[in-house]
Amino acid sequence: MPSYNAPVKDMNFVLNEVLNISKYSNLPGFTDITPDLVAAILEEGAKICENELAPLNLSGDREGCTRHEDGSVTTPKGFKEAYHKFVEGGWVGLSDSPDYGGQGLPHVLAFCVEEMMVSSNMAFAMYPGLSAGARAAIEAVGSDAQKQKFLPPMVAGEWTGTMNLTEPHCGTDLGMLRTKAEPESDGSYNISGTKIFISSGEHDLAENIIHLVLARLPDAPDGVKGISLFIVPKFNVNDDNSLAERNGVVCGSIEEKMGIHANSTCVLNFDSAKGFLLGEANKGLKAMFIMMNAARIGVSVQGYGLSEVAYQNAVEYANDRIQGRSLTGVKAADKAADPIIVHPDVRRMLMNAKSFNEAARAAALWCAMLVDLSHKAETEEERQSADDIVSLLTPVMKGVFTDRGYEFATSSQQVYGGHGYVAEWGMEQFVRDARITQIYEGANGIQALDLVGRKLPAHGGRGIQAFFKLVGRFLSDNKDNEKLAVFTTTLSAALSDLQTATMWLMQNAMTNPDNAGAGSTPFMHLFGHVLLGFQWAQMAKISVEKLDNGTDDPTFFEDKLITGRYYMKRRLPETKSLLAELEAGAEDVMALDAANF
Amino acid sequence: MPSYNAPVKDMNFVLNEVLNISKYSNLPGFTDITPDLVAAILEEGAKICENELAPLNLSGDREGCTRHEDGSVTTPKGFKEAYHKFVEGGWVGLSDSPDYGGQGLPHVLAFCVEEMMVSSNMAFAMYPGLSAGARAAIEAVGSDAQKQKFLPPMVAGEWTGTMNLTEPHCGTDLGMLRTKAEPESDGSYNISGTKIFISSGEHDLAENIIHLVLARLPDAPDGVKGISLFIVPKFNVNDDNSLAERNGVVCGSIEEKMGIHANSTCVLNFDSAKGFLLGEANKGLKAMFIMMNAARIGVSVQGYGLSEVAYQNAVEYANDRIQGRSLTGVKAADKAADPIIVHPDVRRMLMNAKSFNEAARAAALWCAMLVDLSHKAETEEERQSADDIVSLLTPVMKGVFTDRGYEFATSSQQVYGGHGYVAEWGMEQFVRDARITQIYEGANGIQALDLVGRKLPAHGGRGIQAFFKLVGRFLSDNKDNEKLAVFTTTLSAALSDLQTATMWLMQNAMTNPDNAGAGSTPFMHLFGHVLLGFQWAQMAKISVEKLDNGTDDPTFFEDKLITGRYYMKRRLPETKSLLAELEAGAEDVMALDAANF
Repeated sequence: MPSYNAPVKDMNFVLNEVLNISKYSNLPGFTDITPDLVAAILEEGAKICENELAPLNLSGDREGCTRHEDGSVTTPKGFKEAYHKFVEGGWVGLSDSPDYGGQGLPHVLAFCVEEMMVSSNMAFAMYPGLSAGARAAIEAVGSDAQKQKFLPPMVAGEWTGTMNLTEPHCGTDLGMLRTKAEPESDGSYNISGTKIFISSGEHDLAENIIHLVLARLPDAPDGVKGISLFIVPKFNVNDDNSLAERNGVVCGSIEEKMGIHANSTCVLNFDSAKGFLLGEANKGLKAMFIMMNAARIGVSVQGYGLSEVAYQNAVEYANDRIQGRSLTGVKAADKAADPIIVHPDVRRMLMNAKSFNEAARAAALWCAMLVDLSHKAETEEERQSADDIVSLLTPVMKGVFTDRGYEFATSSQQVYGGHGYVAEWGMEQFVRDARITQIYEGANGIQALDLVGRKLPAHGGRGIQAFFKLVGRFLSDNKDNEKLAVFTTTLSAALSDLQTATMWLMQNAMTNPDNAGAGSTPFMHLFGHVLLGFQWAQMAKISVEKLDNGTDDPTFFEDKLITGRYYMKRRLPETKSLLAELEAGAEDVMALDAANF
Repeated sequence: MPSYNAPVKDMNFVLNEVLNISKYSNLPGFTDITPDLVAAILEEGAKICENELAPLNLSGDREGCTRHEDGSVTTPKGFKEAYHKFVEGGWVGLSDSPDYGGQGLPHVLAFCVEEMMVSSNMAFAMYPGLSAGARAAIEAVGSDAQKQKFLPPMVAGEWTGTMNLTEPHCGTDLGMLRTKAEPESDGSYNISGTKIFISSGEHDLAENIIHLVLARLPDAPDGVKGISLFIVPKFNVNDDNSLAERNGVVCGSIEEKMGIHANSTCVLNFDSAKGFLLGEANKGLKAMFIMMNAARIGVSVQGYGLSEVAYQNAVEYANDRIQGRSLTGVKAADKAADPIIVHPDVRRMLMNAKSFNEAARAAALWCAMLVDLSHKAETEEERQSADDIVSLLTPVMKGVFTDRGYEFATSSQQVYGGHGYVAEWGMEQFVRDARITQIYEGANGIQALDLVGRKLPAHGGRGIQAFFKLVGRFLSDNKDNEKLAVFTTTLSAALSDLQTATMWLMQNAMTNPDNAGAGSTPFMHLFGHVLLGFQWAQMAKISVEKLDNGTDDPTFFEDKLITGRYYMKRRLPETKSLLAELEAGAEDVMALDAANF
């Protein structure tokens, strides 16, 4: 069975050394955030993930969820007990507002716990995970009465939430959706329609499930401008918040999927279900995007979270498994063969994953910090500029981190040779679980389009200009630091490629929008490299300073420099070929007649 | 359920136009090979694959194989009947020697049928597939008596064969294997030990199974120089070839795997089983490599075979599924949305697969032709130089084509969005099935090491020099052809990168062998790009000639040029970043202490 050790040390490093979060103690929720408190929370989070969730991952995958004839769903053995421990520990409402019973801690801390949950049990993590998105939407656009009614039990974990967007004939193109909402005389709505791919759509973990459902009012305009968002509880809720009769929403079936077997992915049939308008009529898509953006950043955490746990197990196997001898002479003379970690190609696979995981974690936590600042910073200007960067980075992180997550779950499986293909080792599960992260919450191609079509040009390019300035300032500040030369020269080349690519898009997408479409995925990955390279350069700077000034843990910082150099020298040059792919343009992509593929 | 249409037209194009196989009519087996006969065989092969094997692929995956208490194994519903049709059609012995009842047709034709089998039902294809490897080993090193006894029923498909290498503690490093062979007074051997991961190890398709087993004689030297190869039939065989009593080899369990569920991957327990030495004592590894090399080329076919069928289904879905509108204006005004094939990023995924599949097919069939020439060409020099190229290309094709096969099975699944993740569409099965091809018959990292460590330096670099010369000659012959300029300029740049990389390896592997190990996988993929780019350049030249000289099917050749240009302009520049990765050397790969990963 695979094992998991939460990377608490690395998280502490990012939070305290890289982000220096204690300097934000003037902001709400950050007041008591000392390195000691951070460490204590992370260690408690690690405990529940390592001890309660991880042991259920393989068995949960094997057993899956069971739908009964009445439409009820049982989660795998042990999930209910683990969920209750999770709730009792107060983990659900970690970063929710104290107004609704949350602990009001920074998002940046909740992200660390989220990573641990995903690494230990991705299918489990999705039950509270989807719920967090639903809470965010209710908090953002709900009426005071709705917030008071629904948020406290959801923050407490007694109730969970879902997102209901997709229908059989429409996913990306929500303008086509058909679920209907007819107004009733009591101010509620009568909801009818079929939703598919509803994660955590029905289960036995919580007393009630609050479905957020996109539907059309009778007089709604066509397309996305006629979509409204509704609250549809599984059980209707009395005025005193006690549960009333079952609402008209039933799980019609559970999808048989490639992975995340322990999460119930439901077809939900809404048949005259009682619903309540959430936010403004016909503005449902906007509200849904509040959930969606939070969810997309959450999925990016799933990308490196799965890569991390797969990597950890591959490292253990590579140190354990003896096979063949080192190319430079016997290393373990007392054994019949050397551990396979002596082989450069095995190390290549491990270093690829390690150099990604650590930089992705740094990037995501930076982004989480910016999410906090976008809500809590003192000036509108600070909040705005934080939000600009978050908006810009969201599709990059979702697309790139999940593509890489799948890649490194796969290469970590590869370290096991044939054993990696066998279910009992658990490595193939990481790959199957990772695969969905590239697809849901907007397939990665949609992230790339969102990036080049919406986020780049937003506010006259304010976000991308700010990002270029940040990286550029780092480079100019450190251009004479010889100890950082490897980092600054490679990052500078990659940044230049990204700037060239951005310019190319501006010039060529105007003449032919297909040039933007054909270059969107290479551009997104090019951006991802610069984002990760930038993290490494910053972490290298801190490591050099630590080593120069004396530290009681020099190995940690020396290893950071090695891992960073690996990324800058061996991974970052991919920007060159991505730029070439982009600059080849749309012509050969679009030339073939659709019938001739 | 996924569909499959064998790419007969493209196979005919490669066989007749690119390889011009009718010019080899002076060679045995090629005498009657006219374009008409080729077409007839391919069409018959397509029929059985499309109509008998493909419909069993999804159901076979779901049902899997069943091991009974007595160790017997039942294949999924329909497999037995399909196998019998396959045998009756004479498909097993297509390229086997007529001396043993085979049809003696060229390997290059058998490769086409192999591709169709893999595309339609990979798990099924492995039953006759493994058997072909076993026949090759018996034919190469068996005594006349052994050949007469075992080959006719194996060629007829009445018996199948297996390869038994791996043991729980040793896979790549066969020097550690422990299975014992004790000589008996009657000249046979008493075989005891446990083998794992034995594909098609036990099943109900054939009357008998001939296991080829690596084991150690009592007085054998340590390591790989003490390994011998044995024939161990499931049922002992009487002098008249009728079956005698059951031999001491039993399937102890079937592995629960990520994919290829319909192929029985067995743990085989040999307990005083009767075996017969095959080839010379202590030279078993050499004999095994005869099987292994044939098997590796076969696995490379699995790489593009799975990419092809996944691609075909993605194309169908992309033409069918409507969602969103084209960036350049509405394309299907009569529908609520455009088919998703209008979106450049969807086309990018499809073109990536298509431009790989067609070039990989051309490369593999060229290699298959060289396999034929290495056996049948008139002069020793011709046979030798064909064998040099086959040896060189085998690890490149196995490693690169299976890495790409997995990549494009995955991206074809991605075209389906959420539906691709759901089992009933069959796309996730292609991904799970494709995953094993990167692992078995030598994990791809081993292929890369074989390439840089053995194949490059073999015979003083004769193979690689010959390959450089071939590509170089094509480039100089066509340097003034303006219609080929896109192809020759890009291929020339890629070839130059490969030559630089080869030189770098020669210079830097001497000083530190880890430089070769750390660069082996990037080098293999760099080589793969040049190999595929070379195929496109040759196919482009033919297409230009056809179009210049007038053809009744101009669209076919115009589409070849589009697809080829796509590869050369968007894929081939990856050689730049692979070269940079290689040239970064081993330093940062090896720097981390094994305990600090």
